Amino acid sequence: MNAIAAVLTAFNQPLALQEIPVPELTPGQVLVQVEAAGICGSDVHMWHGKDPRTPLPIILGHEGVGRVVAIAGSRLDIYGQVLDPGQRILWERGVSCGLCYYCQGLHEPALCPNRWAYGIHRPSNRPPYLVGCYATHLVLDAHTPLIPHAETDDPATYVSASCSGATAAHGFDQIKQRPGDTCVVYGPGPLGAYSVALARAGGAEQVMVIGGSPARLALCKNLGATHLLDRHALSAEQQRQAVFEVTRGRGADLVVEASGSLSAAHEGLDLLRPGGTLLLVGFGTPIGEMNIAPFEAVVRKNVRIQGVWVSDTAHTLHAVSLVRQHPNEFAALVTHRFALTQATEALRVVTDRSALKAVLLPNF
Amino acid sequence: MNAIAAVLTAFNQPLALQEIPVPELTPGQVLVQVEAAGICGSDVHMWHGKDPRTPLPIILGHEGVGRVVAIAGSRLDIYGQVLDPGQRILWERGVSCGLCYYCQGLHEPALCPNRWAYGIHRPSNRPPYLVGCYATHLVLDAHTPLIPHAETDDPATYVSASCSGATAAHGFDQIKQRPGDTCVVYGPGPLGAYSVALARAGGAEQVMVIGGSPARLALCKNLGATHLLDRHALSAEQQRQAVFEVTRGRGADLVVEASGSLSAAHEGLDLLRPGGTLLLVGFGTPIGEMNIAPFEAVVRKNVRIQGVWVSDTAHTLHAVSLVRQHPNEFAALVTHRFALTQATEALRVVTDRSALKAVLLPNF
Amino acid sequence: MNAIAAVLTAFNQPLALQEIPVPELTPGQVLVQVEAAGICGSDVHMWHGKDPRTPLPIILGHEGVGRVVAIAGSRLDIYGQVLDPGQRILWERGVSCGLCYYCQGLHEPALCPNRWAYGIHRPSNRPPYLVGCYATHLVLDAHTPLIPHAETDDPATYVSASCSGATAAHGFDQIKQRPGDTCVVYGPGPLGAYSVALARAGGAEQVMVIGGSPARLALCKNLGATHLLDRHALSAEQQRQAVFEVTRGRGADLVVEASGSLSAAHEGLDLLRPGGTLLLVGFGTPIGEMNIAPFEAVVRKNVRIQGVWVSDTAHTLHAVSLVRQHPNEFAALVTHRFALTQATEALRVVTDRSALKAVLLPNF
Amino acid sequence: MNAIAAVLTAFNQPLALQEIPVPELTPGQVLVQVEAAGICGSDVHMWHGKDPRTPLPIILGHEGVGRVVAIAGSRLDIYGQVLDPGQRILWERGVSCGLCYYCQGLHEPALCPNRWAYGIHRPSNRPPYLVGCYATHLVLDAHTPLIPHAETDDPATYVSASCSGATAAHGFDQIKQRPGDTCVVYGPGPLGAYSVALARAGGAEQVMVIGGSPARLALCKNLGATHLLDRHALSAEQQRQAVFEVTRGRGADLVVEASGSLSAAHEGLDLLRPGGTLLLVGFGTPIGEMNIAPFEAVVRKNVRIQGVWVSDTAHTLHAVSLVRQHPNEFAALVTHRFALTQATEALRVVTDRSALKAVLLPNF
Repeated sequence: MNAIAAVLTAFNQPLALQEIPVPELTPGQVLVQVEAAGICGSDVHMWHGKDPRTPLPIILGHEGVGRVVAIAGSRLDIYGQVLDPGQRILWERGVSCGLCYYCQGLHEPALCPNRWAYGIHRPSNRPPYLVGCYATHLVLDAHTPLIPHAETDDPATYVSASCSGATAAHGFDQIKQRPGDTCVVYGPGPLGAYSVALARAGGAEQVMVIGGSPARLALCKNLGATHLLDRHALSAEQQRQAVFEVTRGRGADLVVEASGSLSAAHEGLDLLRPGGTLLLVGFGTPIGEMNIAPFEAVVRKNVRIQGVWVSDTAHTLHAVSLVRQHPNEFAALVTHRFALTQATEALRVVTDRSALKAVLLPNF
Repeated sequence: MNAIAAVLTAFNQPLALQEIPVPELTPGQVLVQVEAAGICGSDVHMWHGKDPRTPLPIILGHEGVGRVVAIAGSRLDIYGQVLDPGQRILWERGVSCGLCYYCQGLHEPALCPNRWAYGIHRPSNRPPYLVGCYATHLVLDAHTPLIPHAETDDPATYVSASCSGATAAHGFDQIKQRPGDTCVVYGPGPLGAYSVALARAGGAEQVMVIGGSPARLALCKNLGATHLLDRHALSAEQQRQAVFEVTRGRGADLVVEASGSLSAAHEGLDLLRPGGTLLLVGFGTPIGEMNIAPFEAVVRKNVRIQGVWVSDTAHTLHAVSLVRQHPNEFAALVTHRFALTQATEALRVVTDRSALKAVLLPNF
Repeated sequence: MNAIAAVLTAFNQPLALQEIPVPELTPGQVLVQVEAAGICGSDVHMWHGKDPRTPLPIILGHEGVGRVVAIAGSRLDIYGQVLDPGQRILWERGVSCGLCYYCQGLHEPALCPNRWAYGIHRPSNRPPYLVGCYATHLVLDAHTPLIPHAETDDPATYVSASCSGATAAHGFDQIKQRPGDTCVVYGPGPLGAYSVALARAGGAEQVMVIGGSPARLALCKNLGATHLLDRHALSAEQQRQAVFEVTRGRGADLVVEASGSLSAAHEGLDLLRPGGTLLLVGFGTPIGEMNIAPFEAVVRKNVRIQGVWVSDTAHTLHAVSLVRQHPNEFAALVTHRFALTQATEALRVVTDRSALKAVLLPNF
Repeated sequence: MNAIAAVLTAFNQPLALQEIPVPELTPGQVLVQVEAAGICGSDVHMWHGKDPRTPLPIILGHEGVGRVVAIAGSRLDIYGQVLDPGQRILWERGVSCGLCYYCQGLHEPALCPNRWAYGIHRPSNRPPYLVGCYATHLVLDAHTPLIPHAETDDPATYVSASCSGATAAHGFDQIKQRPGDTCVVYGPGPLGAYSVALARAGGAEQVMVIGGSPARLALCKNLGATHLLDRHALSAEQQRQAVFEVTRGRGADLVVEASGSLSAAHEGLDLLRPGGTLLLVGFGTPIGEMNIAPFEAVVRKNVRIQGVWVSDTAHTLHAVSLVRQHPNEFAALVTHRFALTQATEALRVVTDRSALKAVLLPNF
């Protein structure tokens, strides 16, 4: 049996459709038919050769939902149910070793030095070959946590839960929220959209989103944003005034930088109330430096700056729960759906930001 | 100037309407015209002489919203705005000393040994006399935190935020929730209704309410309950099955005992997943003993049992925020509104449980 | 090659020394020569047939330090160093699945339903046979976290870190301590001794130990206990007075029940200050019921009762760190050392409590 | 009755000894005879006119221990005991309003916008005049928490607990420590010394102090530092190697910047393990900017940067407890003791860093 994959063989070039033989499974591996594969912004970086981790050739795609085809031996899903062929699942995109200080001593598998992710770290020319989601089939490792996915749930709507959703959830998992908080989110992309939902799920009464796309801002409103600030219409100072007005002059309890912009990080730090927190979730690649006055901006205000790197299964479950609670609102984030043959086009609409979220449907 | 108060002069007897002269204010005191005064279940206990703290004569009523009439000197509200006559406010029902180990060393003013509450601890025959909310006017102590209340917000809807809402919020403030949790709430009264809203505001995906009144259960649904379990229709074992089915056999992450029933506490402990938490918020008076097998029910399951006693201003703010986010749903909890002359009748409808929440409107 | 093991073949009978062939290792397994094997109180329960989990025949012993003999393939220790034959290691006594909701969704592998422990769950008549520490050799599973053990550190001193030390650390990991706290510990056995050290390592200024053995109490003093209360000399009321005197009338911030006695749990609950915590770590088997007045003892005092069940590698590391910081003080806990041939005698001195801690040295 | 105070009347000039009449006390005020007044680094800033908050004339001194002379009315100490003349006390140096969002809604009185501190915010030409500790007498405000101080405890040893000790404790109160952590402290001054003790009281096994004064480093060793790194002998790279060697290549769990140096903050950030925390406690005044690469230094490593501003009574109690646990070690920090007449000289030895800690004994 052969699978078909869209393979990145040379940076900046169109992906190549290749037939790849499905390997014999080793114990614990699971073969899935990929039903939906999300196009992530970091896929674009890899396509452009900007991520030094990228091996070639590679099948991109770390976000996926699929249907079990075969299992080597017996596997349980995360809830302890025996996995059966035909069942739909979503999986943890990163596989940690489970035996190191980060996995076992700190319970932070996201920081495991041995962690690897589907579609990012492993090339397609070494067994089990099918380790990226831009393909009809994927081979899941024996150490991958498996989350059952209901037949009634749209796979394309959920794929982002395993990446941007989980990463945002990781950020929120590190802080304490209170009912009534005011949260500001920079960037109404997928990370920002999940941040809005997470802020509300943590009790925030006011969620203010700053962005440049009215359409994206509107989607955030559906997820619970209470104030939409168009950065083309409002200067940074006007945005600041809006935040301080809403917070009676205090400033925001929490600012989430989800846009990947240095200026947003700088401006966001300035929006915090004393004792507030700046979550940095939007920086996925090197972007230069911030100039921070440690006394005025951090110490005198008793502020916390918290970096957020990837996520683990706990966070994926948080994000999946949010999608399950707001299925239509998250479905609306998926602005583009493509066949596997259109994978390069899918990367393009993410590159030029015409898509909010693009998803491949490799077996449709 | 005289105020009119409904005074408890003898246990189990009708309250007596009395004219009471408004005292001269001492520095920091604030005179308010009471716009709404909640009838709390503990008022009924006091009326019946079952609360040993009760001095006689006393003006009951610890839940209130009012309009500022006069201020001795200058006062700021909790947000730092100068308080003006004519402004509406809600206040913290308990006044802590601010100088003891609990207030300053632990930041738990709810546990302050010097804490006293309006309508509970102080008699009406000692200055400043007007220290309960069943009256046209109330004198607020200089150490009472003051929360501004919008003209557009219905006072009767908010009064419970300062008592049952804040107490429930105190419980939730002591635990960690995760998006996707399953929470079971026993008792769809005011404590339970706030617990439903708090569970959802903390990310719970499934909130299961167990109660005996279909009407009360329906109100909880409006606040976010996902499963309503009628205890007259379902045996304890059937309730248990429902919880384990929803949680895929694990049990609930959180159980909130908000009904004041020993059997609910016992059964609720049994519903917990390993590592879960039982919040005891519903016991307001001595009720006997629980028999708990410490190994099987607590140790082997790594369970937490957390008692919750009253609350502080942080929790009142949490509850107020929830009401502001769901004004119509909380308004529906107020099933009965009475004039001050009907105060005894108001106590009766709470006693016989024909009211979910009864509120006096002393100046209507 | 044959190993020698002391095998429990019939409850209450002397253990039988048996030669057991060392099996061929499967990938990831590690063969160790056992240098020290702790005798745990729960071993006695199993010996007596009181633990329903016990399969027969079984090699008891879940606490161990050993020297690597052979590795099937390549293994890393928890710090990422390649494991070599000849190296000394301590290992996590419980092996969790790493793929379930408790392992991955909650990061609580101690609660994993698939968790099994060396010397407890698996019989000696099924491969890999050597799964208990009362033996010259042990086969470690591929999923067992491995902690390097220094040549200069006495193996016998450290074995308890992986069981009673880790369990106590699990309890302390669930709570918040403050510098200056007062902690009361019931039971100066191994669990209590670790609790004393943990309380101090969490900032406790006063650590009061209640016990019946002056010798054991004295060992706790070496680990940082500030007050020793002999329960044969002081009534429960006198103990209570001592605690309230030390705490200026408030009561203890934390009480650790490490004696396995219902009366200690009851009396300890009564020693708490408002807002305090009762950690139940000492109940390893069913013991009957506690009668708790939920209003007076839990709600009115805003108290937390926290059950503690086993532990995970994080906690083992905490305990190991404590032993490393106090090697001589913990060495003094090991009152008895035996050859493997004396395993039954070792169980007897734990049974009759003449030993504080007994350790087998199977290769000495 | 007249008090004598060393008054700052002009920046950079010697303090002027003045007789100041003791005012009549208003309700709740407490007159104390100052037994010890600490010279803080921020006093030097104020002396030099570098702190824009400084009113003139002013009696400097926010750290003190004294003996009660008179009380207007009745006051309780923080433990609820009636305060009597003749009793020794230590007090909270900052007075918060107790009624604002920070005090009551967040329980963070250190962030109260109305907070003022003895010896910093209030001039000596307005009642009650005696509001700084460089004087024979001080008038304590009615809202000042009062901590009893034992007759057997040296006042000079404890004064720093109310400032540098409490500030460091505030930092540690915001984070989670684990037994076995590695903590690096920059700057072996008072802030650093308390940080060492706090790190150990939180379970740190390795505490590495980086500083330039062997004498100061040695004092840190007495408080529990395990590694002393002389920055004159070791380059930044060598310091880094030392930290990574101790931590088996991971990096430090916690870095405390207590030296007030930008380069320490930069280098410290670089010492963190993934998921580690940088506490910034050493910056008391504007110092310029840090250049931080948010991706590489914060996001990719999931790092937390936490600013720490002043403290509240909880933290003062933590620090006092530490001093009580290590009285001789903290006494050794007090390298200089002066009479009130030598106040200017005391400022000089702090300015030129010949003193580690200088204390005035105004009534000696």
